[in-house]
Amino acid sequence: MQRHVVVTEIERAEPEVVDELGRAGAATVHEAMGRRGFVGAGFRARQRGARIAGSAVTVLSHPGDNLMTHAAVEQCREGDVLVVAMTAPSTDGGFGDLLATALQVRGVRGLVTEAGVRDTAELRAMGFPVWSRHVSCQGPVKVHAGSVNVPVVLGGVVVRPGDVVCADDDGVVVVPRPDAPDVLGAARDRLAQEEVTRQRFEAGELGLDVYGLRAELERLGVEYVDRLEPS
Amino acid sequence: MQRHVVVTEIERAEPEVVDELGRAGAATVHEAMGRRGFVGAGFRARQRGARIAGSAVTVLSHPGDNLMTHAAVEQCREGDVLVVAMTAPSTDGGFGDLLATALQVRGVRGLVTEAGVRDTAELRAMGFPVWSRHVSCQGPVKVHAGSVNVPVVLGGVVVRPGDVVCADDDGVVVVPRPDAPDVLGAARDRLAQEEVTRQRFEAGELGLDVYGLRAELERLGVEYVDRLEPS
Amino acid sequence: MQRHVVVTEIERAEPEVVDELGRAGAATVHEAMGRRGFVGAGFRARQRGARIAGSAVTVLSHPGDNLMTHAAVEQCREGDVLVVAMTAPSTDGGFGDLLATALQVRGVRGLVTEAGVRDTAELRAMGFPVWSRHVSCQGPVKVHAGSVNVPVVLGGVVVRPGDVVCADDDGVVVVPRPDAPDVLGAARDRLAQEEVTRQRFEAGELGLDVYGLRAELERLGVEYVDRLEPS
Amino acid sequence: MQRHVVVTEIERAEPEVVDELGRAGAATVHEAMGRRGFVGAGFRARQRGARIAGSAVTVLSHPGDNLMTHAAVEQCREGDVLVVAMTAPSTDGGFGDLLATALQVRGVRGLVTEAGVRDTAELRAMGFPVWSRHVSCQGPVKVHAGSVNVPVVLGGVVVRPGDVVCADDDGVVVVPRPDAPDVLGAARDRLAQEEVTRQRFEAGELGLDVYGLRAELERLGVEYVDRLEPS
Amino acid sequence: MQRHVVVTEIERAEPEVVDELGRAGAATVHEAMGRRGFVGAGFRARQRGARIAGSAVTVLSHPGDNLMTHAAVEQCREGDVLVVAMTAPSTDGGFGDLLATALQVRGVRGLVTEAGVRDTAELRAMGFPVWSRHVSCQGPVKVHAGSVNVPVVLGGVVVRPGDVVCADDDGVVVVPRPDAPDVLGAARDRLAQEEVTRQRFEAGELGLDVYGLRAELERLGVEYVDRLEPS
Amino acid sequence: MQRHVVVTEIERAEPEVVDELGRAGAATVHEAMGRRGFVGAGFRARQRGARIAGSAVTVLSHPGDNLMTHAAVEQCREGDVLVVAMTAPSTDGGFGDLLATALQVRGVRGLVTEAGVRDTAELRAMGFPVWSRHVSCQGPVKVHAGSVNVPVVLGGVVVRPGDVVCADDDGVVVVPRPDAPDVLGAARDRLAQEEVTRQRFEAGELGLDVYGLRAELERLGVEYVDRLEPS
Repeated sequence: MQRHVVVTEIERAEPEVVDELGRAGAATVHEAMGRRGFVGAGFRARQRGARIAGSAVTVLSHPGDNLMTHAAVEQCREGDVLVVAMTAPSTDGGFGDLLATALQVRGVRGLVTEAGVRDTAELRAMGFPVWSRHVSCQGPVKVHAGSVNVPVVLGGVVVRPGDVVCADDDGVVVVPRPDAPDVLGAARDRLAQEEVTRQRFEAGELGLDVYGLRAELERLGVEYVDRLEPS
Repeated sequence: MQRHVVVTEIERAEPEVVDELGRAGAATVHEAMGRRGFVGAGFRARQRGARIAGSAVTVLSHPGDNLMTHAAVEQCREGDVLVVAMTAPSTDGGFGDLLATALQVRGVRGLVTEAGVRDTAELRAMGFPVWSRHVSCQGPVKVHAGSVNVPVVLGGVVVRPGDVVCADDDGVVVVPRPDAPDVLGAARDRLAQEEVTRQRFEAGELGLDVYGLRAELERLGVEYVDRLEPS
Repeated sequence: MQRHVVVTEIERAEPEVVDELGRAGAATVHEAMGRRGFVGAGFRARQRGARIAGSAVTVLSHPGDNLMTHAAVEQCREGDVLVVAMTAPSTDGGFGDLLATALQVRGVRGLVTEAGVRDTAELRAMGFPVWSRHVSCQGPVKVHAGSVNVPVVLGGVVVRPGDVVCADDDGVVVVPRPDAPDVLGAARDRLAQEEVTRQRFEAGELGLDVYGLRAELERLGVEYVDRLEPS
Repeated sequence: MQRHVVVTEIERAEPEVVDELGRAGAATVHEAMGRRGFVGAGFRARQRGARIAGSAVTVLSHPGDNLMTHAAVEQCREGDVLVVAMTAPSTDGGFGDLLATALQVRGVRGLVTEAGVRDTAELRAMGFPVWSRHVSCQGPVKVHAGSVNVPVVLGGVVVRPGDVVCADDDGVVVVPRPDAPDVLGAARDRLAQEEVTRQRFEAGELGLDVYGLRAELERLGVEYVDRLEPS
Repeated sequence: MQRHVVVTEIERAEPEVVDELGRAGAATVHEAMGRRGFVGAGFRARQRGARIAGSAVTVLSHPGDNLMTHAAVEQCREGDVLVVAMTAPSTDGGFGDLLATALQVRGVRGLVTEAGVRDTAELRAMGFPVWSRHVSCQGPVKVHAGSVNVPVVLGGVVVRPGDVVCADDDGVVVVPRPDAPDVLGAARDRLAQEEVTRQRFEAGELGLDVYGLRAELERLGVEYVDRLEPS
Repeated sequence: MQRHVVVTEIERAEPEVVDELGRAGAATVHEAMGRRGFVGAGFRARQRGARIAGSAVTVLSHPGDNLMTHAAVEQCREGDVLVVAMTAPSTDGGFGDLLATALQVRGVRGLVTEAGVRDTAELRAMGFPVWSRHVSCQGPVKVHAGSVNVPVVLGGVVVRPGDVVCADDDGVVVVPRPDAPDVLGAARDRLAQEEVTRQRFEAGELGLDVYGLRAELERLGVEYVDRLEPS
């Protein structure tokens, strides 16, 4: 009943859209989508300062096995991000510097995995960024079937092949491919607005005034008092 | 029955006391207090090398909401540290670079939060240090009442407004305001004693001798043997 | 029934073997051993870029107490790594810069502990690398008996005194002393083979071809399809 | 960009298929599906001995809010199971005996929620089974928008309205509605085969022989020895 | 600087108030207090069906030590609940059937502890209910100072001696002693209102109508649609 | 380098010793051993009220695979307990009612596993007790080599084949086979002493007096005060 496939043709978003979403950063993109698409605080950047976006090539893998990750490399091209989901929880480090080399040669921008990574010092030296739940020496086998470029679930978020994966030090956000242009528009608006707000804050204005929150506080019954009486 | 208040007048410790506690570092202050006040290993520095102390302005917030954090900015002044507690567990990233800008303009030295932070790369670039349980893209709403400058509990430690918050790479320690001068005295003694001990260790002396522990080992029945017999 | 001992004579592996295992790195050594000896993803490097190997001096300690760690310092010599196991889980920071000073003077290369460490900024400044489950201000007492140089269990792995401890950013791997020369041989083979593979990957070859995995995919029934039919 | 909807028409599987899947039990159904659909060990039964299956009515809810759960009650009918997913992690107990009463009156068979439940003693007394990540006194608000009968993700598994939810003491398994008849066929086969195996085991036969595993052990190089030589 | 005390005189709430709060149950009391005082989902009942309330006698204990728990027994009387907090996290089982015997003789109604308990089968057989973070065989020592009847923090909630501790299968809620009569009044109102709501639900009415939520859904922009268009 | 073996001859403790250790219970045995051998609070009983002891037949298994568990059944006999350790963390439910049937026929008393179990309702109905880290529907494969009756590590405790495994609602304790008679002697003494203490407690005596702790409190500087002065 369970079929294992490698899907070879996927649609990707426009490169310019992907790149500009990448520059906007994960937190801004997340807001621009209406606060959806964040895969959760469990996926941690294994380097500092990387900020990327790319088109998802997805892998659904048996825990502790990287056979399908190797199969996925062939499906990757310039501007992609490899997304590896597992059929059961695993801390194993099924991704290291050799696979990173194979991906970097093809122009892949980074990796997001539910399991672990290893060779983290080498990955940082290579400039190949990764986001993972775990770091682990435990290497993989190459014996279990799985799939490439099928929809997968990452930290509770559905990732379809070709979706735009945005990742930086704040985490990983997934933009459905069809929504990418609209999300970019909203992200641009948000960045412009944030810039205005930042200048007002730098000038000493308060969020209470900039966002008009004083009325909200009053409506909610929040009282201002000099000091608390002892209870 | 639940009243939401913003308390506008709080007492702070002497600035010189606060600053010197900051230089002593969290681990030393913790020892100087008789090993109290540590909020636990779950609060992690989101940058490396920051070491601060400041007077606590406290926020008790609904999870996923930063309305009261905005209200707290107005209550902050030079030398403060903002402390954000939640009424229920949350991983959401309710604090980012805009709020940090507003705080930095007022001379606030850093943030400690039970929930998450975002814009971590920007925060590091700005030099605004944060300690949090989580990093998360998930942004906040601004619709729930809460309180500012009421006593809160952070990782099992009660923080009262004006208490001295010491934070560095080892974590966060809270000194009750009335105890701050005495704790500083004890911290100075400890630092002086540690310096002496460090020099003796650098000269090759052993803790067994410096601390007089050989007698303790004997009293406890610890035996020295050449090798273990097979069991 | 429970005896506390300090064992003063232990056998160590050849220094050249230890040093070369250190250069190979934890992930490679782990593979070379047949994927054994990894103490698990819970032990984290508290600095970046350190890569060491050394002979284990072991401590079995009461939680929150570092008396036996002091006793262990005397048993350490040039090229050792101190390994501290606990009789019950603890997050306490029982190791800081003073003990690190005492160890560094004796040529000890680093520390691995099941509990917490503190003074992490100072440890990084000193260049003394540590791997731990926790970071915590909470300092230790010096009042409970324990043992030095007995077999201990670290993250599910038995560590005997004199075993070779390899640690870097990927984690900690323990090589039983008698196996060290054979593991080194296997590690050399693996490194040579990885270098060849890396060059083939850099030249654009695929893991599917380098490892001969296409036949395996076919045997497992993995199908290549243009696109997924809607389900 | 984010639209909140209540979908009022959903397709359900045949009642006989649902009921028989329920009797088969979650572990058997999971096997029959090719080991897919298990929402993970984090979802725990809050009673003992319940074994149900039903058609999913889904809720996507703001954490700590049960407004949309109330909206979902109206969409439920005899034989359904209510499935509540959250837009962010929460331990809050947004479900208790009042909502259970409303559901039980409509013939709903149970609840599965990503967050917490409360009134657990009352729920057991009522015979209304629940599966949840948490138990918590913390009650909900009713102020945030969400959706009913949209696809949701539960512990990494996509649940579509009308999918068959099977739950018992082993956990929760989700069968896509279109696959339900085939899964039932496979489950029947499996149950029949397990019954045969059970009788052989009760007669003292070994799995090594029943499953023909001796050859596999030999192929894998597993050796039989009288005793281990000391290493 | 750290003083260890046993406070011998504490004020307790009226017995009738305590008893009626106990019958109301933790979830109802929590609501009646404005959703405060819940110590968190980590404290689990180690039996089923117990529902108690009592006046808190508090212990602040060193991890893995029960000396101060023994000191606290003497301070307990009919109708109390013993509350044990730790100065650092611990899973140790510092409470078992002997201490329970000593408490039961004095009319103590149960125990809440941040650490572990053991002899759980015996405790159930005795009918002495306990709530704890852990179950563990690991027994305690009796050698560290601590305090009795000082304010402690339990799961982020301050517990003062004489506060009313309500505990059942949903968890543990702490009512500040001075608030107990008002909370009881609010709990009575809530129970009466819940009974009315329950009858309306049993009669088939919906929460949407009982709570007037349809207007709220409309105000929030939640749309009713027949079916989702494919995205 | 890694050899997989099934060891067919193991030494077991005297049946009378094993049985009496079983009746003493895990917490008492743990104390009698000097507080060693507890595998940790993570291993939970999946039924209530079982209390067993047996001779360990050990399995070292690949995660998610139960081939070697089947191989181990053949090595089991009347009075044994099967102990299953994993080479890497796993939540999978590799043990269910069929394997339990095969073991029960041979007189095996229970199972302890680092991974998960399934068919928990059936196991309770059969009266076959299990202790595990997880409950999970996720079934196993039968394709990876491993070993039977080699030393394994369970929650940080070394278990050798033939060691005595004691398990009840408080958890699992492992007694090294050679120590079993002495541990039994100490357990008998402890039970006798506990019975005396229990009678004294039932008569209203205090632990402070029974254990002579008042002098200890004084020595530690614990002060008795009427009430706390406000700080």
